[in-house]
Amino acid sequence: MSSFPTSFDGVSVATKANVYFDGKVISHSLILADGRKKSLGVIFPGEFHFGTAAPEVMEITAGSCEVVLDGTTETLAVSAGSSFDVPGDSGFTIRVTGEHCEYICSFGTP
Amino acid sequence: MSSFPTSFDGVSVATKANVYFDGKVISHSLILADGRKKSLGVIFPGEFHFGTAAPEVMEITAGSCEVVLDGTTETLAVSAGSSFDVPGDSGFTIRVTGEHCEYICSFGTP
Repeated sequence: MSSFPTSFDGVSVATKANVYFDGKVISHSLILADGRKKSLGVIFPGEFHFGTAAPEVMEITAGSCEVVLDGTTETLAVSAGSSFDVPGDSGFTIRVTGEHCEYICSFGTP
Repeated sequence: MSSFPTSFDGVSVATKANVYFDGKVISHSLILADGRKKSLGVIFPGEFHFGTAAPEVMEITAGSCEVVLDGTTETLAVSAGSSFDVPGDSGFTIRVTGEHCEYICSFGTP
């Protein structure tokens, strides 16, 4: 169980939201003072595939999800307070059932 | 037609989203460096009533909506690039049809 920050301070936040899959996945993009990029998002019930360019760390901050990384067959059960890593130039399938799931996505260097 | 910023810089953003009406309305809360509070949100099709504590300025940044302020009967048609003001201790009904609508909500002093 990892903890996550309740806020990010001194950041630049894009006013326009990122809306994917007819609004089933929504995020807002942040750039931290040191240049690192993150997004804060909400995923509603469904199953969605995302590709990655940069590697990503996905911290789940509310709800839970099941994840299958591209090129693997194992299903990872991830709940609030936990995270999973996704390599760059890859992707993952995320499944949310029941309640919506919230995340902090942190982008690494491609 | 007013313009709106593409980003807010030097802000504090809450990691947890505000999710209303079963996810039909989602926002993230910001606090600007000078202490002013804003939220960035997305509204999916439907009709929703919000109460206000502080007065609010709602700038529509994508899509469009129809608004009826509490205590009035006039329907305001508001599209991207326009805004509407809501008094404090009041409220408004907002209706979105078709595409989702995005907004910047700026909270004033109660």
